[in-house]
Amino acid sequence: MTRARLRDLGLSIGRLPPGPLNAITDVTGVLVGQETIVREAPSVVRSGVTVVLPENGEIWRRHLFAGAHVLNGNGEMTGMPWLEEFGLMCGPLAITGTHSVGAVHEGLVSYELKQGFAFDFCLPLVAETFDGWLSEPLALAVRPEHVHAALRSAAGGPVAEGNVGGGTGMNTHEFKAGTGTASRRVEVAGETWTLGVLVQSNYGRRERLRLDGKPIGEAITTEDVPSPWPKPRDAGSIIAVVATDAPLLPHQCKRLAQRAGLGVGRVGGAGAPGSGDIFLAFSTGNVHSAAEADRLHAARFLPDMALGPLFEAVIEATEESIWNALCAAETMTGRQGRRSHAIPLDRLVELGQT
Amino acid sequence: MTRARLRDLGLSIGRLPPGPLNAITDVTGVLVGQETIVREAPSVVRSGVTVVLPENGEIWRRHLFAGAHVLNGNGEMTGMPWLEEFGLMCGPLAITGTHSVGAVHEGLVSYELKQGFAFDFCLPLVAETFDGWLSEPLALAVRPEHVHAALRSAAGGPVAEGNVGGGTGMNTHEFKAGTGTASRRVEVAGETWTLGVLVQSNYGRRERLRLDGKPIGEAITTEDVPSPWPKPRDAGSIIAVVATDAPLLPHQCKRLAQRAGLGVGRVGGAGAPGSGDIFLAFSTGNVHSAAEADRLHAARFLPDMALGPLFEAVIEATEESIWNALCAAETMTGRQGRRSHAIPLDRLVELGQT
Amino acid sequence: MTRARLRDLGLSIGRLPPGPLNAITDVTGVLVGQETIVREAPSVVRSGVTVVLPENGEIWRRHLFAGAHVLNGNGEMTGMPWLEEFGLMCGPLAITGTHSVGAVHEGLVSYELKQGFAFDFCLPLVAETFDGWLSEPLALAVRPEHVHAALRSAAGGPVAEGNVGGGTGMNTHEFKAGTGTASRRVEVAGETWTLGVLVQSNYGRRERLRLDGKPIGEAITTEDVPSPWPKPRDAGSIIAVVATDAPLLPHQCKRLAQRAGLGVGRVGGAGAPGSGDIFLAFSTGNVHSAAEADRLHAARFLPDMALGPLFEAVIEATEESIWNALCAAETMTGRQGRRSHAIPLDRLVELGQT
Amino acid sequence: MTRARLRDLGLSIGRLPPGPLNAITDVTGVLVGQETIVREAPSVVRSGVTVVLPENGEIWRRHLFAGAHVLNGNGEMTGMPWLEEFGLMCGPLAITGTHSVGAVHEGLVSYELKQGFAFDFCLPLVAETFDGWLSEPLALAVRPEHVHAALRSAAGGPVAEGNVGGGTGMNTHEFKAGTGTASRRVEVAGETWTLGVLVQSNYGRRERLRLDGKPIGEAITTEDVPSPWPKPRDAGSIIAVVATDAPLLPHQCKRLAQRAGLGVGRVGGAGAPGSGDIFLAFSTGNVHSAAEADRLHAARFLPDMALGPLFEAVIEATEESIWNALCAAETMTGRQGRRSHAIPLDRLVELGQT
Repeated sequence: MTRARLRDLGLSIGRLPPGPLNAITDVTGVLVGQETIVREAPSVVRSGVTVVLPENGEIWRRHLFAGAHVLNGNGEMTGMPWLEEFGLMCGPLAITGTHSVGAVHEGLVSYELKQGFAFDFCLPLVAETFDGWLSEPLALAVRPEHVHAALRSAAGGPVAEGNVGGGTGMNTHEFKAGTGTASRRVEVAGETWTLGVLVQSNYGRRERLRLDGKPIGEAITTEDVPSPWPKPRDAGSIIAVVATDAPLLPHQCKRLAQRAGLGVGRVGGAGAPGSGDIFLAFSTGNVHSAAEADRLHAARFLPDMALGPLFEAVIEATEESIWNALCAAETMTGRQGRRSHAIPLDRLVELGQT
Repeated sequence: MTRARLRDLGLSIGRLPPGPLNAITDVTGVLVGQETIVREAPSVVRSGVTVVLPENGEIWRRHLFAGAHVLNGNGEMTGMPWLEEFGLMCGPLAITGTHSVGAVHEGLVSYELKQGFAFDFCLPLVAETFDGWLSEPLALAVRPEHVHAALRSAAGGPVAEGNVGGGTGMNTHEFKAGTGTASRRVEVAGETWTLGVLVQSNYGRRERLRLDGKPIGEAITTEDVPSPWPKPRDAGSIIAVVATDAPLLPHQCKRLAQRAGLGVGRVGGAGAPGSGDIFLAFSTGNVHSAAEADRLHAARFLPDMALGPLFEAVIEATEESIWNALCAAETMTGRQGRRSHAIPLDRLVELGQT
Repeated sequence: MTRARLRDLGLSIGRLPPGPLNAITDVTGVLVGQETIVREAPSVVRSGVTVVLPENGEIWRRHLFAGAHVLNGNGEMTGMPWLEEFGLMCGPLAITGTHSVGAVHEGLVSYELKQGFAFDFCLPLVAETFDGWLSEPLALAVRPEHVHAALRSAAGGPVAEGNVGGGTGMNTHEFKAGTGTASRRVEVAGETWTLGVLVQSNYGRRERLRLDGKPIGEAITTEDVPSPWPKPRDAGSIIAVVATDAPLLPHQCKRLAQRAGLGVGRVGGAGAPGSGDIFLAFSTGNVHSAAEADRLHAARFLPDMALGPLFEAVIEATEESIWNALCAAETMTGRQGRRSHAIPLDRLVELGQT
Repeated sequence: MTRARLRDLGLSIGRLPPGPLNAITDVTGVLVGQETIVREAPSVVRSGVTVVLPENGEIWRRHLFAGAHVLNGNGEMTGMPWLEEFGLMCGPLAITGTHSVGAVHEGLVSYELKQGFAFDFCLPLVAETFDGWLSEPLALAVRPEHVHAALRSAAGGPVAEGNVGGGTGMNTHEFKAGTGTASRRVEVAGETWTLGVLVQSNYGRRERLRLDGKPIGEAITTEDVPSPWPKPRDAGSIIAVVATDAPLLPHQCKRLAQRAGLGVGRVGGAGAPGSGDIFLAFSTGNVHSAAEADRLHAARFLPDMALGPLFEAVIEATEESIWNALCAAETMTGRQGRRSHAIPLDRLVELGQT
């Protein structure tokens, strides 16, 4: 059965309607760029980088309110002190493999310097999950140029999922996974808002995997479809980025970010000790420039009591993003002949429709 | 059908075995005391207070490592700055109705003063959820003496659930609920540890209610069994306290506390804006005295990488605690003839066993 | 020498000009109410409560952005989870003695209920420092009615300092102290803003006391003027509340709150282990209502990069507030004949003018 | 006058005695390595990297409890989610220029991989301050090899201060500064402990500079000794690392880290908006391995109430470290002929001894 998106299989998560693309790019101005590195020599590489680039690529000048939350901190997202202090996203988020954080960080800095952006905001956002099971860790294959390429190719429209970009070498609940995305539309305060999520998903134990509450991982065991690991185990991390056009203040973005963890929990995550479960949320509803320090700024925002529907949207879209990563990813063979199996879609359909 | 515990109905949550009582009192030395106030005049009161009293009541002298986490902060737990700074639980946790925090706080202080405990630790832990729908808020019915009574009656053994103690007037997913508890046993680092949870559960919208993934709230709608409110809505809060005999350091207790939120999320919570979802975790594995400031102390602890099974235990036991509150609580009529219905157990069994 | 304010002595702190009253009440709409309890029988009481009531007493309906910071958490400020989650101040801050937190909490709740304010916001802000050295701790002298009286008497204009309100029984750097206040005016983004601080000051060791860098506590030792304690020691806490009409978002209020600790540090505080050093900052520059959840709100704010002058204002005004508490407080005799000495103003002038 | 350390000038900070070297290397096993890059072509570079390497270089296998605090987050320290979650320092801290975070991160990863350390702990600690005023930002001069060299050369003993390592291009209170260190010895719980601080100091406005309370920056104005900037201003950041052999738990390390900010405040820092004031504290008093997840661990620790002397040691040593950076640094000319002047030591002695 060809790989597909969850909804192509007649399955879905939750009650809220998705946006037209069911992707983070449904949020106006949000671009996604991905650079995938798959090669066999001199060492086996299954890696890459994914960038989420808001404001049609003008994020370095058009800053957005943002906030982050950590469910389990065995992972990295650089730029977090800045996010906490200023509540501003002043550049793209890049997601890559654990060992490539440095190269990607330098790539974001050099891109920014070459574009002539102000020096003051060189505090890049780089997050990671570990692809070193399938991809040779010593290769340090992702270079600054890969980030440049990902930024240049960033676009709206449908987002490639599965074995692509930073998600190339990733696994989830002991199936092959990687990049996934989904979106929701919600009504709050008399207007309709769009909220999208993109995940780089690389966490979880098979037996805990659930589809909208259904125990898929108990049905498709590691005896049916082997685990990537010789002995089934809990490994890895998940990065989720939440984008919305609902106008939110920084502390409200943090509130949204924490709800991504509830979505991960519903799929079967427990914020396991080996996991870096780190979530970033940003709102395109207000645009500022931290450089304009000499005047009062204005912002619109939804009152905190009204955010309930957005919380549900985060939970649903995170859950569906993970599932889109699982459904899109194809079986991959990596270094030392290691093999990570795609989740069998026919079985999934059968189990999901019960 | 008589009210029951979830497991009495042939239903259960998760994979880990419960302790002998399936209650927080399975953790050695943890006592629970509850004082229930149900009266019709001069005003209708459905309120009370629940205390969790570790170390067989010696908690004021035998301090335990502890930590807290807030999923949504529309609620209160006093003592949180102390918990964050010292990582010590130096007295019981009391849970009550929102307006009774003051009286309960004073009750803990006066109890402590009368017992001659050191002045230095009068930073009581008082948490709350709102029972003002069924119970007259202006009554301020809970007095310091009720806390004293709850402390004096605190005991090990089975814990009364449902409409009792601080949980007396509470509702969950638009059914009657209140106090609930559960426990799990896990093996970590070659030893078996016990972890128990007690909740005061008062949150959630009907349609989101799930039993181990099964959409109960979609099946038993507010048309079948009315909501306590004229118009179905999301209201209230949940307090969870996690106790374990696994030796943990303060930052590890915080890690456990955050996982209680994943349990709430699996039942259907979203950390809704109107909700105070606040979680406390403590470990009986090390006993200290903050007063002994003149010597080195020693502690044992499980390494952070080993906490996975405890995280799962928190998630499962929180989920089952909420369900025990739902299953135990009986239909209650409160002020102005308002009525909160118990979840029908026959329907639950039918739905849960599918 | 009659007690005075620091500036009456020809001394001052820092470079920024104070407002007309050099008090937190320079911030438009900020009222202060204080209820002082000094009695000898049946037990010796030196206690009270101070309320900071913004929006001319309409704070329950006119909510303000706010945030808090803890330098050392051996103390209490209730309402912190709410502040962190919603970033809103929805009622007054009350400051009292450690054991009176409960009674004051209940007083704020009952006042609110009697005024018919919405139930949803009964998460009062009550902070404390310990007056139990001079005042009989068992007395529990502060009752809910005292808070009601403090609220009814709250007013703008000059603020009583020293042995008054919640500060009645407090000591600072081993001199008598209590309530103090100061203000600053700063220019940011082309406009002039007012920032005021009020402290309840009860912390510190003699030898560390400094006036604008000058080592006062090394000059006026406990041999010159005895410590309140038989053996000089570090005890107590400090609560500071920062008010400003500069329009700030919640995360910016938190930034201001942390700077209050730098002011405490300059006077000689170290965030000592026995100290509850907790700071609240709020901005009157935007007024909202959390109850209005059905529409978009608007806010003005100063950009984060522009807050430098406000940070300095917080540091200077905190430092001067503590000194105003020290200069205003008169020598007090308390329970068991204990005596806390006022700082001798003639020596202070002599030392300060060098 | 030759550059010197503060104590060589007959000046000092505080009351506590320093260790034999008055340096972070007084803490047993703490090594410091620095790589300095000063060149004129192809572009002017004044940069470098400093590493703090505990456990005699075995930190990758011998993990230490640690914690961090942010006074102002306009800066970076990678690895903070891990520090917060596990409370463990599992590798060196490297400090460099803002744009070099990526290269240094990669350098730490590649060093670790080459040494064959476990993959699981590749979450390096890299902090930064901005040297781009004197050093060409586009140069990206620091390469992974420089970190390798700094690690290989890391040693105990006296630490080079001023224009060296990561501090090469840095300025403080508008004088030339850079790397500085100091230490203190304190008695707690009947034993003597050593605490050392190392700073990379690059913050502050001239007029706020103080030496132990004395207003040096008001005396040596930018008219006397020019600011590095055409127009005096507040720019830059400060990183402080606190090491102690006192056995502390992770939450206690965080407590120490926050006190570094009080030291910065006493010198004249305000946590200015443009400043990344980030502090790391670690304790060598317990050694663990996160990899040993299959057994109980043991730890010794000082009770929280006893940490007061350590807090004072942090404050004093941070203050003196900054002054050692100021006193050691020589006047430097950088790109575009920009010039940062050393503080004149003769004037300093004169002012400081008054």
